[in-house]
Amino acid sequence: MNKLELSKVYQIIEPGPVVFLTTAHEGRANVMTMSWHMMVDFEPPQIACIVSAANYSFAALQATKECVIAVPARRLAVAVVEVGNSSGRDIDKFESFALTAKPASRVQAPLIAQCFANLECKVIDTRLVTSHNLFFLEVVEAWIDRAQRRPKTIHHHGYGKFVVDGSTIQLQSKMR
Amino acid sequence: MNKLELSKVYQIIEPGPVVFLTTAHEGRANVMTMSWHMMVDFEPPQIACIVSAANYSFAALQATKECVIAVPARRLAVAVVEVGNSSGRDIDKFESFALTAKPASRVQAPLIAQCFANLECKVIDTRLVTSHNLFFLEVVEAWIDRAQRRPKTIHHHGYGKFVVDGSTIQLQSKMR
Repeated sequence: MNKLELSKVYQIIEPGPVVFLTTAHEGRANVMTMSWHMMVDFEPPQIACIVSAANYSFAALQATKECVIAVPARRLAVAVVEVGNSSGRDIDKFESFALTAKPASRVQAPLIAQCFANLECKVIDTRLVTSHNLFFLEVVEAWIDRAQRRPKTIHHHGYGKFVVDGSTIQLQSKMR
Repeated sequence: MNKLELSKVYQIIEPGPVVFLTTAHEGRANVMTMSWHMMVDFEPPQIACIVSAANYSFAALQATKECVIAVPARRLAVAVVEVGNSSGRDIDKFESFALTAKPASRVQAPLIAQCFANLECKVIDTRLVTSHNLFFLEVVEAWIDRAQRRPKTIHHHGYGKFVVDGSTIQLQSKMR
């Protein structure tokens, strides 16, 4: 994996792919599936996300204030659902679903080797955790696997229905 | 357009499509393009979004606390970019880009007739507007145009590059 410039992180998150969120707490790594997230700022890149208090990852995120957002391509769709259907309370999801945890550089939470992008994040604002389960993250380091060419992401439409990236169109935009 | 059950709104927003956001303020309607938004709760559906203070729509949203999120399919991609490239300070974007404003039922902001989904929203929390330009919306009424079959949404990857929805996969998920 190569470093990705932080100024390009929004190009990965803005399209709205399903992602993994990893944490490490009390000597154990865990991973959940997440679809409720958005960019908040370009650089340094800030991301808001909803992690329900019902998720096992919630306590880890709140206690350690660190996580990794790992972005899977289509070939990981089955793992995405398996991770979403199970809880770290019961199993080691990395082992159970053949995801390879790799050390990150700036946070204790692991990268996922099979994902084409990995974003190391620190929690920077917890004011809305109690009322909305909303965490603000700052991406402090980002990685891209250039061996995965044109990875197609998947987008959740509810109840296990996913739409895969299709064709690309290029228009003359002033939008960043 | 038919009413859409509020419990199904997340299925439209969760996949991360580019959307329009309309407002009406001091007798004038306006529309902007938006990609930074996410679901916050299922029902009643709540959405968080970033509307920069640099956008002309910001003042209208803050003053009226109402808007419509209108979701375009691929055929509106050029209008999406044109709306994003221009400001309501200078032009009437509905007229300029052939978008048809239609009266909403619960808010002053207009629906967009060409969009396959329209969500009437009220601003419910402005605590993070000053620090993050973040508005919390509650969807109070939702509309779907069933004449648009299997609309393919577009997802912004930066600088006018959009990825269009491709194939669909169905997996056995416990995820809502």
